[in-house]
Amino acid sequence: MKHSVEFQPDNITVTVDKGENLLVAAASAGVYIDAFCGGDGVCGKCKVHVEQGEVYSERGNLKQDDWDKGLRLACQSTIHSDLKITVPEKMTSSGKALKRKPKTTRTISARSLDTLIGTWEVDPPVTKLYLELEPPTLEDNVSDMLRVMRGFKNARPGEQEPSYDHPELIRELPTVLRESDWKITLLLLHGKGQNEPDRIIDVEPGDTTSRLYGLAVDIGTTTCSGVLIDLNSGQVISEASGYNAQIRYGEDVISRIIYAARGSGLRDLQERVVHTINAIIEDICKNMIISPADISYIMAAGNTVMSHLLLGLDPKYIREAPYVPSVSQFPLTKAAGLGIHAHPSVRLFLYPCIASYVGGDIVSGVHACQMAKSEKVSLFIDIGTNGEIVVGNGDWMVCAACSAGPAFEGGGIKYGMRASSGAIENFHIHPETYDPMIVTIGRIKPSGICGSGLISIVSELLEAKVIDQQGKFNRNLEHSRIRDGQDGWEYVLAWGQDSLIGEDIVITEVDLDNLMRAKGAMYAGYQTLLGSVGLSFDDLDRVIMAGNFGAFIDLERAICIGLLPDMDRDKFYYLGNASMLGCQISLTDVNRFRERVKVRQLITNLELSENPEFMTYYMASLFLPHTDMSLFPSVKDKLS
Amino acid sequence: MKHSVEFQPDNITVTVDKGENLLVAAASAGVYIDAFCGGDGVCGKCKVHVEQGEVYSERGNLKQDDWDKGLRLACQSTIHSDLKITVPEKMTSSGKALKRKPKTTRTISARSLDTLIGTWEVDPPVTKLYLELEPPTLEDNVSDMLRVMRGFKNARPGEQEPSYDHPELIRELPTVLRESDWKITLLLLHGKGQNEPDRIIDVEPGDTTSRLYGLAVDIGTTTCSGVLIDLNSGQVISEASGYNAQIRYGEDVISRIIYAARGSGLRDLQERVVHTINAIIEDICKNMIISPADISYIMAAGNTVMSHLLLGLDPKYIREAPYVPSVSQFPLTKAAGLGIHAHPSVRLFLYPCIASYVGGDIVSGVHACQMAKSEKVSLFIDIGTNGEIVVGNGDWMVCAACSAGPAFEGGGIKYGMRASSGAIENFHIHPETYDPMIVTIGRIKPSGICGSGLISIVSELLEAKVIDQQGKFNRNLEHSRIRDGQDGWEYVLAWGQDSLIGEDIVITEVDLDNLMRAKGAMYAGYQTLLGSVGLSFDDLDRVIMAGNFGAFIDLERAICIGLLPDMDRDKFYYLGNASMLGCQISLTDVNRFRERVKVRQLITNLELSENPEFMTYYMASLFLPHTDMSLFPSVKDKLS
Repeated sequence: MKHSVEFQPDNITVTVDKGENLLVAAASAGVYIDAFCGGDGVCGKCKVHVEQGEVYSERGNLKQDDWDKGLRLACQSTIHSDLKITVPEKMTSSGKALKRKPKTTRTISARSLDTLIGTWEVDPPVTKLYLELEPPTLEDNVSDMLRVMRGFKNARPGEQEPSYDHPELIRELPTVLRESDWKITLLLLHGKGQNEPDRIIDVEPGDTTSRLYGLAVDIGTTTCSGVLIDLNSGQVISEASGYNAQIRYGEDVISRIIYAARGSGLRDLQERVVHTINAIIEDICKNMIISPADISYIMAAGNTVMSHLLLGLDPKYIREAPYVPSVSQFPLTKAAGLGIHAHPSVRLFLYPCIASYVGGDIVSGVHACQMAKSEKVSLFIDIGTNGEIVVGNGDWMVCAACSAGPAFEGGGIKYGMRASSGAIENFHIHPETYDPMIVTIGRIKPSGICGSGLISIVSELLEAKVIDQQGKFNRNLEHSRIRDGQDGWEYVLAWGQDSLIGEDIVITEVDLDNLMRAKGAMYAGYQTLLGSVGLSFDDLDRVIMAGNFGAFIDLERAICIGLLPDMDRDKFYYLGNASMLGCQISLTDVNRFRERVKVRQLITNLELSENPEFMTYYMASLFLPHTDMSLFPSVKDKLS
Repeated sequence: MKHSVEFQPDNITVTVDKGENLLVAAASAGVYIDAFCGGDGVCGKCKVHVEQGEVYSERGNLKQDDWDKGLRLACQSTIHSDLKITVPEKMTSSGKALKRKPKTTRTISARSLDTLIGTWEVDPPVTKLYLELEPPTLEDNVSDMLRVMRGFKNARPGEQEPSYDHPELIRELPTVLRESDWKITLLLLHGKGQNEPDRIIDVEPGDTTSRLYGLAVDIGTTTCSGVLIDLNSGQVISEASGYNAQIRYGEDVISRIIYAARGSGLRDLQERVVHTINAIIEDICKNMIISPADISYIMAAGNTVMSHLLLGLDPKYIREAPYVPSVSQFPLTKAAGLGIHAHPSVRLFLYPCIASYVGGDIVSGVHACQMAKSEKVSLFIDIGTNGEIVVGNGDWMVCAACSAGPAFEGGGIKYGMRASSGAIENFHIHPETYDPMIVTIGRIKPSGICGSGLISIVSELLEAKVIDQQGKFNRNLEHSRIRDGQDGWEYVLAWGQDSLIGEDIVITEVDLDNLMRAKGAMYAGYQTLLGSVGLSFDDLDRVIMAGNFGAFIDLERAICIGLLPDMDRDKFYYLGNASMLGCQISLTDVNRFRERVKVRQLITNLELSENPEFMTYYMASLFLPHTDMSLFPSVKDKLS
């Protein structure tokens, strides 16, 4: 259920989900409200007047007096009706109310993804078939397996005879048949192609057709997640996630590769990720009536290093020029063979990778959004330590990886942190008082800055001219929050008294340099890749942002700092965890699954390291938003 | 090289291999020569006169006098030129030379099998492909496996991309490629069908195309044998065989099934047969330049119980009515997974079985002789403890197993033994003196009677009217060798002084009863099977005898006792170890190999146990040769 919230005097109306926090709604709408404590309710600054409608609110440290006047703390209020809100005028130090600049709504409403990802059928790669067989007699004493085949043919006349190759299945078949009184359920795996026969991967006693589950797994370098799908209905019935337990051996793929080269390193890493997947399976099944043995298929995707490590393949050559993975098309594997707690017959499918730094997660994402089925030219972006970019349509695709560095994941940023509780995720600066409005994840006191917060902060500082286009602080501004600190010039986002860590949380010029390098690498990547196929940004019909991080990026601000190209906003789509989405779609619809082969075959990799064009583009990108302002007309207008 | 040998006064000429023993040549030609000692040279009875030509001979205990006259001991002479031999006239006790009955040559010359088994190409299911790959560069850094695929496509344009699924192969690929300087040999396994892609099962450093070997294995209940074939030339390069080490757990399949039901029984049996195969591999490779790791494919056949035990499948239900095997089409298996000492990627193919007692050895044999490709109606026979029979042509086939009992393998016969050194394998009786001519395997003193000897003895005793058609001795003949012994009436084949075991070797009426049951079951089997499809013996175009035992059966004598139908002798073929032959053909020619699917699909099993028609036919067969003499016209003539 949705509600509209009108903010005055900015005269901005946004539509938000029922139950949304009012401070978060304001921040995402670009409405500035004083908020120093990140939403913890302690600073008592974010007072707003509820003119119409009602919020559920706690008084917190608000005076009874204010409460009775209809004032509420925005950070303590949740939206439960259409609202009209007035934000009190901010006073300057001289006590004069400031006239606000008129603002346009900066929130990009979630565009319908239907056209992008399409629909899919509930027609999974695994199916079940219940058979009641005639018991053998002296006149009819064919082998048990032949009897099963005959049952299959009777049930599905005209279809090819299924294959079977699991020794355990044959070994147990006679007992299963006799103990179940010749009433059994076949678990069948569809063939690779449409014309290939099914494969019997399990024979279960009795009628178990109502129990058919599949697991989609996204194997991230940092986080792994799993989604359990009822393959009879196509419904998601449970989800779980957790840190990739490999993390103890290093945060990024490079440190994992280095660890893999040690004595038992490769085995350790393989065991850790399997352990992580097992924990997810346990978590998912814990509160359900199903057991891990009920999972009939696993569809997984991960980057190239994660995929190699899961299969126990040495990732050594991925790190050494010319950066060659062992294999790009991973064979269908028995999950139990890897140590995963699943029925011995259950297969694990791992999305193929393209290159050492463009992995199965990208292929899965590109597959999910059907780029390979469209005439429209799309730019697919996954931003992270290793940013991946794919450009193309149903006729051709090129991809590249650019090493953006860890800034967006908190690395190289003085108070950088991952997107977890306490991280500043949204930020506004008052254009005249230079006071901050900060919103943290979990709405507690801030403890650091995550990637989306960083983009907010830098774009706001740039627009308010607190920093210039080179990422240097305006030394002429006299403000207590702008100062020459321990590591050079910096802006104080939160004073120690308002922060969770008890010290001032700042952003420094060094942080700004690192951010520029990260976003510059991405932008130079787009340019190089487009140039390689003779296109420019004007030729793009769509920009598709994948990845969990992508889902939280404020489009206008990302364009403002030069992380995303300055294009028609209607061309942008947020796909979220596209890798997981691809796995879910493939798990549910075998026809969609089979299309993936085309995706993998279409994509050609372009190596950016040591690419001279990339280096030229990169140097030109180390500016906010770019040295060539003609590339960013809307930002040029905004800054002038 | 062949030589002709003319025997006088019988006026019989035979053609034999150079180096053949003269006594053996005479015995197989049906020329009676006194020979009590089996060919050991001690009885000194088998004197013959060499009229023309020359033999290599030892004097043995022949008098110098006789030697100088040109007499030689037949058993001590080998044939090295065309010969004319005169056998001295046998004297009766009255001293009068006997007039011999004119005899016809009874030897069936080895009929050319070319029309039966056809020709085959050297185009094995596994091939090798040498590739010199371009090393990767930054501009071309596809995965190692994709580079291999590209090399394959360049070498074999237009062919489908091969598949791969062996994890170890992918794991080792990067190292193999780099250590071999990107020069590798692919070991490829052809797809099941003609339109299915090859599968890469190994990648070897350097050019190993000249080393491509396959192993054909016949897994017998008693004996296992292996033949190593150079798959580049199609030549057999080495053979070995040995007792199936399961034999310690019982001689026949039933006792093996019983043992399998014990605690670790099934595992023990599986390990023993694998041990046997490993010993054969070791034996074969011992004196060759190749190592077991050079074997690229294994093609095996065995009866249904042997096949189940090799794969570790419980044979329990094979023994219990309605006699159902677990599986008839065995999946392609990795040999190493069973414990066989082979390269981990090497596949073992096991011929499919038809029913619990008609196994892969029969399918392999039927496959070898191309019954499924001919319009001619053939009767395929494999005689043993479990006799298997197949009737049909390219349009239809029926099969049956009949439990003949162990008589042909020495079981239930007082002095029965397997066909090994010292076993009487050929026998003639003097029609008037009733003295024996015995030839043993290895030409040493006799120690027992093997299957082919038994058939010789019974047919000779019958023709000489020493026994009647009910298998009873003629009580009216007064002869020291025909007597009422410990176990009833018997004929003394060898006196204790002439035997290896120091006691009289006899054949008893109990033995004759057991033989009649064995041959009666076979004959009743032919009749029941033919009747089931509305045919009679007249409709048969060919009778094909498989099995090692079949190769040693004297056709006339086998017909004489009623083991084989009384038909035009030109319709009979001896195929020898047809099971091994099928494996060898399939190993060498993938197109022949692929035809096997049709063989398996064509054959329908008929269960003879508890079949009332079979029982009726069986009872009528318990006679020599049969109660219905119209079925045996040639024998009727001979006996009258």
